[in-house]
Formats: sequence, structure tokens, C-alpha cells
Amino acid sequence: MASSVFCRQLSLSLHKNLCLSLSGCRYASKAAPKAQVELDYDGPSMKTEVPGPRSQELTKQLGEIQNVGAVNFFCNYEESRGNYLVDVDGNRMLDIYTQISSIPIGYNHPALIKLMSNPNNLSAFVNRPALGILPPENFPDKLTESLLSVAPSGMSRVQTMACGSCSNENAYKAMFIWYRNKERGHNYPSDEDLSSCMINQGPGCPEFSILSFMGGFHGRTMGCLATTHSKAIHKLDVPSFDWPIAPFPRLQYPLEEFARENAQEEARCLEEVEDLIVKWRQKGKPVAGIVIEPIQAEGGDNHATADFFKSLRNIARKHGCAFHVDEVQTGGGATGKFWAHEHWGVDDPADIVSFSKKLLTGGYYHKLELQADKPYRIFNTWMGDPSKNLFLAEVLNVIRRENLLEEVTRSGKALLNGLYELQAQYPGLLSRARGQGTFCAVDIRDDATRNNILLKARNKGILLGGCGDNAIRFRPALVFKEYHVHMFLNLFNEVLAQFNESRRGGGT
Amino acid sequence: MASSVFCRQLSLSLHKNLCLSLSGCRYASKAAPKAQVELDYDGPSMKTEVPGPRSQELTKQLGEIQNVGAVNFFCNYEESRGNYLVDVDGNRMLDIYTQISSIPIGYNHPALIKLMSNPNNLSAFVNRPALGILPPENFPDKLTESLLSVAPSGMSRVQTMACGSCSNENAYKAMFIWYRNKERGHNYPSDEDLSSCMINQGPGCPEFSILSFMGGFHGRTMGCLATTHSKAIHKLDVPSFDWPIAPFPRLQYPLEEFARENAQEEARCLEEVEDLIVKWRQKGKPVAGIVIEPIQAEGGDNHATADFFKSLRNIARKHGCAFHVDEVQTGGGATGKFWAHEHWGVDDPADIVSFSKKLLTGGYYHKLELQADKPYRIFNTWMGDPSKNLFLAEVLNVIRRENLLEEVTRSGKALLNGLYELQAQYPGLLSRARGQGTFCAVDIRDDATRNNILLKARNKGILLGGCGDNAIRFRPALVFKEYHVHMFLNLFNEVLAQFNESRRGGGT
Repeated sequence: MASSVFCRQLSLSLHKNLCLSLSGCRYASKAAPKAQVELDYDGPSMKTEVPGPRSQELTKQLGEIQNVGAVNFFCNYEESRGNYLVDVDGNRMLDIYTQISSIPIGYNHPALIKLMSNPNNLSAFVNRPALGILPPENFPDKLTESLLSVAPSGMSRVQTMACGSCSNENAYKAMFIWYRNKERGHNYPSDEDLSSCMINQGPGCPEFSILSFMGGFHGRTMGCLATTHSKAIHKLDVPSFDWPIAPFPRLQYPLEEFARENAQEEARCLEEVEDLIVKWRQKGKPVAGIVIEPIQAEGGDNHATADFFKSLRNIARKHGCAFHVDEVQTGGGATGKFWAHEHWGVDDPADIVSFSKKLLTGGYYHKLELQADKPYRIFNTWMGDPSKNLFLAEVLNVIRRENLLEEVTRSGKALLNGLYELQAQYPGLLSRARGQGTFCAVDIRDDATRNNILLKARNKGILLGGCGDNAIRFRPALVFKEYHVHMFLNLFNEVLAQFNESRRGGGT
Repeated sequence: MASSVFCRQLSLSLHKNLCLSLSGCRYASKAAPKAQVELDYDGPSMKTEVPGPRSQELTKQLGEIQNVGAVNFFCNYEESRGNYLVDVDGNRMLDIYTQISSIPIGYNHPALIKLMSNPNNLSAFVNRPALGILPPENFPDKLTESLLSVAPSGMSRVQTMACGSCSNENAYKAMFIWYRNKERGHNYPSDEDLSSCMINQGPGCPEFSILSFMGGFHGRTMGCLATTHSKAIHKLDVPSFDWPIAPFPRLQYPLEEFARENAQEEARCLEEVEDLIVKWRQKGKPVAGIVIEPIQAEGGDNHATADFFKSLRNIARKHGCAFHVDEVQTGGGATGKFWAHEHWGVDDPADIVSFSKKLLTGGYYHKLELQADKPYRIFNTWMGDPSKNLFLAEVLNVIRRENLLEEVTRSGKALLNGLYELQAQYPGLLSRARGQGTFCAVDIRDDATRNNILLKARNKGILLGGCGDNAIRFRPALVFKEYHVHMFLNLFNEVLAQFNESRRGGGT
């Protein structure tokens, strides 16, 4: 079987690599216990600066084909394992960014390799169907055992899509269709509706809007982009819609220490939301839906309290707007619950919940009334990819079997406590440590310093990502254990210490 | 190896099935020679009406999860081979629709199965990377041997995306960015650009437009949808942009018999295009790009001549608009050339060419000047899927090794000639037969009759799709040989005859 060949190679290569021990690791506060190696390496191992010579060569080669301005380095995915990403120069890094938060159970998990060696699964890979018209026999069962087994409270319907942007675009369309039928009082469009929509005009193409939040990120296709407000470079030069944008609460951390101030800030934002809904209705561009992330991720890991989200959900209900929770980045377990909105503790969290990344397929859950009333309204050729559903079902099995949500909660506590300690140790450098599960972040003094720290950490074998103006975001896989946290904290401490020293010396 | 297990099952099952011969086949004009069986079946085999009882049961089950109004039937992809799609009730149909034109070399092609058994390929499936930041080592090579080996004339750059809509959305963004920088005379946005775009306003979000054509189809996300004008149900209730829409030539077929009339019609449309460009510039919504399909597919298989496209390309050049040829449905060989625009015989066909479907990955080629000037402007988490590039490289090998473009040209001639004959035989029923390669279509008297014929053909084991108001479109795989054409024509003739008879009898 293909997988046995691969696993043999894998154990040989692991055996070889395990002989190398983590070098240069000083223990700051807690000792990192020996790794329980399960196809994971025992630590970073750096051979060159990153990007190394081979990465630079390949970047030049790819530069003849594409814009490579965002390329960090090239990877050897065959040799990557668990929490460790190996690059083409033989550098092995502890990956706390996981392909922008999208590798749920680490690299080359044996359960996924095994799935590929099952001949019953082959045809799902080689015959990609048009799911909306000709689904495979096992499609309802696979949806049931994968996506529906983790459906948000109150939702029993799900639509798969190819990526996060397509998921949100179609969720918006579902909200517009629902809103218009509600407005009509029936779902029989007039002749004028049908003819005017063909030329992009009202009443067939109504001037509805989606209310979004400053700092939010919902994707980069043109509908999504009109609700994305995290960085100008994403939006610049692209035509958009005149849709309302509310302020997202700018809270003080730790949240529990600033409960009163934060409640005031949240009340201010909620008031603004209601004002905007009224104002846009008066403008003739009524708000069909509100879209929000449970934690603004790309925009800087901005949190809000459960009370805020509960009130917002009530405002949506009161004004007849659909409530869309975008869990593309937060979904899949990293907050310690499968969905971040579960932390709100409500039975009816949303009308629509979209997902992608860690779920391996894009898509959205929705309430029955948000289902388009006719076929071909929410539709495209592929509508997802059944091979991704197979992987997802297996990922969910691993999450359950290995109690990964509990692990995430445990690792997350260690990570956040470690960040609090580092923040106390480097008060001029770090601030506003915050997080839920391992979905954590910390602010760095300024943008330039943040970027510098990211590079220095990478050269020490720690792969991290930035977000917002000056934050570092932590996005490890769900198999990131407590000992990985301590390994990270020790190495990160070295980076910060070195950085502080070199700064005292005048350079960075 | 996994593939050998699968291939053994496959040959056993083939052996069993080859003992069954095509029943109920009357020969109309030409004899269908015996199939050169290469993991293909020798004809349709129908056991129930379609959808059969098992499909109906599964449709009910899926109906608890999704809108199933568009589901035709459920498929057994494991048992499907070559040109034949097998359903869950054991019906085996000659597939001339191929998952909305997206299965390039038939079902379960051994070359693709073999690829999956290569352990070197496993990690591309189980570790989906964020291609824009952390590409795999073989990414430049795989792009070179797959997409770049079939790059349109004048284009050496390509960007992959997850699906057709995302490809067009990002192509539009590339045109907007290019146009704005051209307008600026440099690529340094002002502070006002940067701040206004964050709230969806000009000048940062300029009121640029994309000129599209009535009857065109370019996808269903909100940017794409503003350029899609094939059916109202796709657009109804979704906000849109005030962008110009030109008439697409409504030609008479066969094209060569109506050269003078068609030239007049095309001149009229071109004049309208120029008028719209001027008018929208005056409105303050200048046309940054023109998007068009080489053959309008979803909109009814509407053709235009090479002269029309050459003139349109010149108009784009003259007015400083980018020219985007959408080959999502036409690309990949079905017209007898790899790209439909190759039939125009020009060196500089376009500034952007988008693709998906038969290419297995979405994406677009573009000229160097259409590359976004900064990173993260054209970006998302996955930016395609390297496992699809692996399949594509293999598909291209098969196309070359088996001379499939020549085969398509040969089969296409037989198909179009057959349609001409049937059209002469059933003048009240069929008209306007047209096509390039096997990318053919024929109009049916009216919508209801068309839908009826599609169902009757399906129950005879011929799977076809509709397009436009009352057309049937032919979208076989590239392995659809001349003998498949004759088999189809014979069965289709039976359907039409039966239909004509039953109509004479008063019922359908």
C-alpha cells in the first residue's frame, strides 16, 4: 500500500532526525518535558537563515511566473511532521501559524495518509463531481458524519463551497434572497424584477446592504471585500458598495480586569450599529444582514465579550436583519471549543455560520429559512470538493479520539499565562496579551519591531504570523501540546531578550 | 499499491459489464463500429427510469441538509469509466455533459489513478499549503509543466485560484489595479486613497466598471455576477454594480452561409461597445476591462466570428481597457484547440485569460503589466490547490500522448455533421446546429420540448445538458471518439423519432 511505503520512509527519517537534539534552548521559567513523539519532531533545527539559498533560488524561479512579494520560503511538505514545518534548506520550524490557521491536526497526520491508501476513496479524488446536480452516493452520509456532526446550535443545514470567500459571498446572497422574499411577503418575483435584474438594476437587483465592522476581514472577492476593513492594501482600487461599517469594540485586556470600561465601549458600538441600521434604511439601502467574526483575526485579534455578541444578535433580530457569524478563521477548535461562538453560551447564536481553513472545505451552515427558495440561486459547478469532506471526517475522528479540544484548552492556558509573564518581563515591548484556547495574540511596541521579532523568531525556528497593525497572532494546530508551548516560550524569551539587548546597544 | 487493487477490481467489473451488449440500438444512418475498449464501457445500459429508486431515496436524505432542486440523480463514481457515468441504481449513461464540462479525460482514467498511488504525491493531498506564502518545492516546476506548457500566446504568467468565480473576481481586481495605476501615472496611492478605500468610498474605491455582454456568464460571486447576464434566477435579489452591458451578436448558422448578415450584426454590436465605453467614461465610471467568452456557453452557445473578436480586442486597445477572455468553459481542448481563442489566429489575443473546469484548478493567465504591483493585493489563504496541478500535468500528458485535440476535431466534425442531418430530418424540432470541435449545440423548438427531450434521452442512456432559452449543449470529455458520436446520434435519433411520433399522437 502507498501509505506503508510512505510510513516506512517516515519512520526512517524520524529515526534519523530524532538523534538531533534541540540546540541552543535555555529554560526560562518552566522545563519543557520530553516530547511524546507521535510522528512529530522533538524540536526546531535550523541550518541557514530563512529564506535559505534554495528558497531564494526557487523564489527567483517563481518570480518569473507570479508576484512573489508575499512568499516567505519554500517548503518540503514531505518531511514536515506534526507541529513542524520543514523548508527546502533543511530548516525545521515549530509552526505556530499553520498555513494561515488552516492545518488542523499537523502535517502528514497518519490518519490522513491512511485515508489516501483506501482504494474506496480514490474515485473521490480523481472524479470531481458537480455536487449540486450529480452528487456521489455517499455525499449525504459524509456530510452527516463530517460537517453536520459539528453543526452549530440550531442549524441542521449546510452548503459546501470551494473556499472562504465563496462561502461568504454565497452566505450574503442567501441573506439577500431571504430578506427580499420577506419584504415581498411571497417568493414570486415580478416581471419587472426579472427583467431589471438582467441589467443590474433595481428592483431586481435591490440596493440592500450588509453591515460589517471596522477591522473585520471576510475575504477578497467583491462582495466579501465590501465587508472587509482590516488593511487598505486589500481594498485599494477595487470598486465597492456603499454599505454601513460599525466600530468594533476596542477593549482593554485582560477583559475581566476592565469589565466596566469594556462594557461602556461595547455599548457605544452597539448604539452605533442601531444608528447605522436606521440610517441605511432611510437611505433606501436596508441592512439585510450583519456579518461579524467572533474574534477579529486578520484585523488584529480583537475580542469582544459574550454580552456584546448576545446584544448584537438581539439587535439583528429586532431590525429583521440576518445574523452571520464568520468562523472561517476561528472555527475548527483553536479556541478550545469547536466554534468560537460556543463561548457565548446561547442556543440561537446565528442565522448563518461560515467556515473554511481548518475545516478543509469552505461552506456555511444556515437555518432552514435562509435556504434559497429555488434551485440554481446558490450554485456553481463544483460547490465544494467531496475529497475534502473525506479528510474532514477523519480530522473530526482524530479530534474526538485524542480529546484535542481539551488539549487546546490546556495548551491555551499555558500559552496565555506565558504571554502574561513575558509581557510583565518586557513591558516596553509586549502588551495586551489576549486569547481563547491557543487562539492568542500579543501586541508589539510598533509595526517595525513586530516584523523584526517575527524574522528573528523564524531564524530561531519559530514560525509566527502578524495581524492588525502591530500584533503577533498564534495559530498552532490542534496537536500543539503544553510542552510545545513551553518550548515556544523559552525560545521566544530568548528572541525578546536578545532583541532588548540589541536595542539597548542601539541596533535591532 | 492502492491503484493495483483498484485496477484489478476495475478489470473484473469491466469484464462482467462487457458481456452485456447495447440493447435497443437501431442504426439510423451510420453504423457505430465496435468500441476500442480502453477502460471504457461499450454502451449505455439502463435498468430504471432516472432518477431511480435509490437516487430518489438519497435525494430525500440530502433534502434534509440542502436544497436539492437541482439534483439530477446520485452517482456511483467508482463504477463510472471513460465516457460513461454510472448512477446508484446501476444505470450507465453515455455522458455528454461531464459535470458541466469539467471532466477532461473521462472517469477514473488510469493515469490519474496511477498518480495517486505514487507516494511522492501524497503530501500534496494531505498538506494543503497557503500557496502565496509557503509554496511547496515543486510548485514552480509543476506550474511550468502544467499550466505554462499550455499558456495562451503572449502570456508567461499565471495565478491559480480555487474555482472559476474566484478566478474571474481576481482577474477583475487585477484589471482595476492596472487601470488605476495607469490613470495615476505611478503606483503610489495617496493618503486619501488609503483612508477612503477603508470605508468603501472613492477615490480609494473608484467607480470603475467592467463591460460585459448580454447572455454572458462569468460566475456567481458579486463581482462576477455583475457581468453575468444569462438567466434572471442567477441574479435576482442580489445587489449589483451599474456597469455597461453590450449586445452579443445574434448570428445565423451555419456561419459561413450567412457571412454578410452576420458581419452586419457583429458591426452593430461593436459599435454599441464603443458607445458604451464612451458613455460610461462620461458617467464617471470608466471601463477598466472588457470580459467575454469565446463562445457564450451557459447563455446558449452563442458564437461570434474571429473578425468580431479581433475588432473587439482592437477597441479595448484603442480605449485603454484590459481585454479579458473567459475560457472557464471553453478552455481545455473541447473546441479542437486547447483554447477556443486560438481559432482567432492572433498573436496577442488578450491581456487576461481565465480558466477552471477541465483545467481542474481555477486561475488566470495574464500579461506582465497586469500583475498587481504589490503583494497581498491578489491573495487569499489557499490560492488554488497543488494537488489539482498534479492531476492537470497528467491530464496534459494524456492529451498529448493520445493526440486528443485531433480526436476532438474528428469527433466534432462527425457530431456537427450528424446534427445537421438530424436538423434536416426534424426541421420543426431542431435548428441552428453549431459548434467548434465537440463543443456543439442545437436549438430545440421551445423550452418545454427541450427539457422533455433531455429527460427522454437520459432514460435512453444519454446524458446531456441544456443552455440558454432552448438549446442543448454537448460537452463530452476529450476521449469522446467518433464511434461515441455515432452511438449518440443513433440513440438521439430514436428519441427524436419517438418524440415526433408521440407528438403526432397528441402527447409528449
